[in-house]
Amino acid sequence: MSKIEVCFSPALYPYFENREAIVVVTDVLRASSAICTAFMNGVERIIPVRTLEEAKEWKAKGYKVAAERDGIVKDFADFGNSPFNFTPERVKFQNIVYSTTNGTQAVQLASSGYKVLIGAFLNLTALCDYAVESSRDVLVLCAGWKNKFNLEDTLFAGAMTDRLLKTGKFDTVCDSAIASSDLWRIAESDVIGYVDKAAQRHRLQKNGLDDVIEYCLTHDLTRIIPVLENDYLIKLEGFE
Amino acid sequence: MSKIEVCFSPALYPYFENREAIVVVTDVLRASSAICTAFMNGVERIIPVRTLEEAKEWKAKGYKVAAERDGIVKDFADFGNSPFNFTPERVKFQNIVYSTTNGTQAVQLASSGYKVLIGAFLNLTALCDYAVESSRDVLVLCAGWKNKFNLEDTLFAGAMTDRLLKTGKFDTVCDSAIASSDLWRIAESDVIGYVDKAAQRHRLQKNGLDDVIEYCLTHDLTRIIPVLENDYLIKLEGFE
Repeated sequence: MSKIEVCFSPALYPYFENREAIVVVTDVLRASSAICTAFMNGVERIIPVRTLEEAKEWKAKGYKVAAERDGIVKDFADFGNSPFNFTPERVKFQNIVYSTTNGTQAVQLASSGYKVLIGAFLNLTALCDYAVESSRDVLVLCAGWKNKFNLEDTLFAGAMTDRLLKTGKFDTVCDSAIASSDLWRIAESDVIGYVDKAAQRHRLQKNGLDDVIEYCLTHDLTRIIPVLENDYLIKLEGFE
Repeated sequence: MSKIEVCFSPALYPYFENREAIVVVTDVLRASSAICTAFMNGVERIIPVRTLEEAKEWKAKGYKVAAERDGIVKDFADFGNSPFNFTPERVKFQNIVYSTTNGTQAVQLASSGYKVLIGAFLNLTALCDYAVESSRDVLVLCAGWKNKFNLEDTLFAGAMTDRLLKTGKFDTVCDSAIASSDLWRIAESDVIGYVDKAAQRHRLQKNGLDDVIEYCLTHDLTRIIPVLENDYLIKLEGFE
């Protein structure tokens, strides 16, 4: 029996760290949804960087850079982190450098795990299938908002927990996993309505960036699973 | 309009810190329930200490000491942190030194707030009445389990959030507060059944300490609110 755990914030990661686990990093609104979209549209590699300084250095070396803070695209960047920015014209066969408020930091933190995968509703079923196939513990790391708990990442974690528990091949004694799946069951029948309560929805709305919410809550548009290899994300091979 | 926020772990406190807020520290199973019980049974002061070394120093000075780690009473202590230990015979008119796995650490952390109160189901209505009367922001700090999220503290936070929002004098944009109150509404009709899923319930059961769960989930046995003054807890005066 494998175990499923959920960590609500990068700041809590040290208490959940499990070097043998597959760590699924999620930042539903919007980084992990954007990363999945980039791979759907044929990106070659995504290079996640923590700081804007690093992003600028890559830019100076000639890379295309997606960078934002608090939902606002940085001046030097080619584009921001809306999934709609990662069009085939921009990303196909490209290496893209990516720096966001919460998501890319979480990816680097998770790198102590056995494998780091990028999770979103867009690739939920593929992730669950891979987790079952791997017979390993799974830890969902929610990127949150500046280290605070957030609803939308928790719902994703809950959906994944719920699915994995139902396979009978996973169990949990993790209170965050239990809470997430209970919240998912409340939200499931009207996820967009539920996410309407979330602070991030209001942040995006304020900045006119809430056009992506419905898209980011769509299930299973792809079987692609982005995976961290060395310092960059590529498409997980041998699984689709 | 005042705001209600919920912090799921002492490790997240820096992201929620609000020097103008009333901070309600909760550790339902069992420290905050035990502290309320001690005041119900006439304790004069409770001196919360972080480390077992400090607890030993107080013991050497002649104080009665309640101390445990991971639910197990320490050898040098007079008793552990079951609410049932804080009998009138032991605590009436006494100053008791108290050190626990999670609860007392959270109390000291919260001391940057405007006022630090001890919250449990045992004094829930009194706390809500006081919060409304004070017209101040409220932050519920869940002691959690070794910095992890836990269900029972979250349910208390949810019950308090739910009550305060219903007064129309509080609102929230805090995702943790929203999640807590949603979880509370799932659990409300059968809280003991719900807490049966919690990791702490299983920890207590393993150590034969689960006899207190029903008691700790009982509402409103007292109007007493323990409050931090300097380095010790006393009964909040002028309110009952």
